[in-house]
Amino acid sequence: MNRICELFGIDRPIVQAGMIWCSGWELASAVSNAGGLGILGAGSMYPEVLKDQIARTQAATTRPFAVNVPLIYPSIEEHMATIVDMQVPIVFTSAGNPKAWTQHLQSHGIRVVHVVSSVKFALKAEAAGVDAVVAEGFEAGGHNGREETTTLVLVPAVADACTIPVIAAGGIHDARSTLAAFALGAEAVQIGSRFVASRESSAHQAFKDAVVQAGEGATRLSLKALTPVRLLDNPFAREVWSAESGHATPEQLATLLGRGRAKRGMFEGDLTEGELEIGQVAAALNDLPQAADIVAAIDRGYRALTAGMTDPHFAWP
Amino acid sequence: MNRICELFGIDRPIVQAGMIWCSGWELASAVSNAGGLGILGAGSMYPEVLKDQIARTQAATTRPFAVNVPLIYPSIEEHMATIVDMQVPIVFTSAGNPKAWTQHLQSHGIRVVHVVSSVKFALKAEAAGVDAVVAEGFEAGGHNGREETTTLVLVPAVADACTIPVIAAGGIHDARSTLAAFALGAEAVQIGSRFVASRESSAHQAFKDAVVQAGEGATRLSLKALTPVRLLDNPFAREVWSAESGHATPEQLATLLGRGRAKRGMFEGDLTEGELEIGQVAAALNDLPQAADIVAAIDRGYRALTAGMTDPHFAWP
Repeated sequence: MNRICELFGIDRPIVQAGMIWCSGWELASAVSNAGGLGILGAGSMYPEVLKDQIARTQAATTRPFAVNVPLIYPSIEEHMATIVDMQVPIVFTSAGNPKAWTQHLQSHGIRVVHVVSSVKFALKAEAAGVDAVVAEGFEAGGHNGREETTTLVLVPAVADACTIPVIAAGGIHDARSTLAAFALGAEAVQIGSRFVASRESSAHQAFKDAVVQAGEGATRLSLKALTPVRLLDNPFAREVWSAESGHATPEQLATLLGRGRAKRGMFEGDLTEGELEIGQVAAALNDLPQAADIVAAIDRGYRALTAGMTDPHFAWP
Repeated sequence: MNRICELFGIDRPIVQAGMIWCSGWELASAVSNAGGLGILGAGSMYPEVLKDQIARTQAATTRPFAVNVPLIYPSIEEHMATIVDMQVPIVFTSAGNPKAWTQHLQSHGIRVVHVVSSVKFALKAEAAGVDAVVAEGFEAGGHNGREETTTLVLVPAVADACTIPVIAAGGIHDARSTLAAFALGAEAVQIGSRFVASRESSAHQAFKDAVVQAGEGATRLSLKALTPVRLLDNPFAREVWSAESGHATPEQLATLLGRGRAKRGMFEGDLTEGELEIGQVAAALNDLPQAADIVAAIDRGYRALTAGMTDPHFAWP
């Protein structure tokens, strides 16, 4: 019995991260149809776009899916009303106080998961009543904590501190890293970069190609003075790094970042001026498979690696 | 069959990291007597001290042990002559070019392992003929790479790239993280911080206590402009961080660091002015056990976690 599969009503404890500009209905429905949990990344969607994306997802799959909502989203009331009205079964919240929306959503029968990067915030999320937490490490492409705690250190610490189930995120892309996450106490994995580099991701083809070509050391945790995010090396990222090493103020960084950079980079494929967010595991990715094949390969690989294991924690549904 | 146990002639694929000021003969011999591989950290030893420490280790154990030599050590010829003369069976080199000494040591029947933080340097070490590599991630207390690649991302990448066996380091302190490392492709683990916080470590009691008390986010990768190292929060570390965020030059940082800071902090227990190096897992450590109990707990825990597993990679000797 896997508590995350039980909680979400899914077959495989594999969650596709909700990522701005990369995870629309094609990706989310493909992952859900493959037995995992697909997530729409609502942080980059206008209210009308989210409605449309939910409708398309519901048309493309009868399986559970989720919406990721950064709690700092400006029109969050509209997003939450849409989610309740359209009967989205699961919401992942991030970047904000989980107290604000958890009980409201749960009162409508919605499961709520909050993304954290520290034990401190995991305990706050548990106290707010969330059903599970995503513990996301330093190596991830987003939701990075200022403490820089890596997945290997963060996941067991959160699993020890909380009684609700923990979903591990950051640096996970295959069966080996999934088994590592389970060894550390996780009961599911959330995978981002691997699904950015998939056929169904809504990332621009040029960005997908850049992810596949990324080598060792090609990403760096950046913009810690604003909201920390891991940037892929490109001319814009170099401008940021140069400003940061020159002791730029948060205001100067905000000006440099400007508006619409992430869309320009990840959705429109401007590899020069655009902001490209991706995890360290980009260095390990060499192809653009179908999302269902990613899920199936992890499922198959995990079963092979753990064949014969008797510890029930490692049981795969 | 575990290639690292075979290579070193040890019973358990558990290596105690060679750490300046913390790993003298008491710790190294205790770990070797417990079936792991104890390592003397020669980077903080004068040539006469290393001779004495090797003699004491040989008097305290008949099992294999190693010496860690940073290749930037000023009197390295003396250290290497001592190692050959006193028939040390295994040498771990770090911080330098493995070409310089590998063949010389091997010609005297000594096994050579090099510590790396990237695939690029792992391949260079393999080409230089080393017998194994330690792949050490961002979360570690030392030997950190500028790319900031975490253990979870680094270990599988190095294991895929090399044919020689890989020892995982950084963030590992118990059976769960050891299993995670094996899942990622490692054939042994190198553990530092957990052994700093042990009865036999030569760290000052005040430093040991500070490690045990360290909480989440208490360490930070520092001094990247000189040699990257992970510092535990204390007044000296805050001076460094303040200088770094103020865009200090490498020369200014070197002046601030001065001489003898690490000894002052870790060996003499000056928690104000001393340099304290430790890994992120310090946050998970709550006691000061005997080294043999650390080895035994990992051994027992790993066997319990993997009971029944049929994949030979996870077989524990």
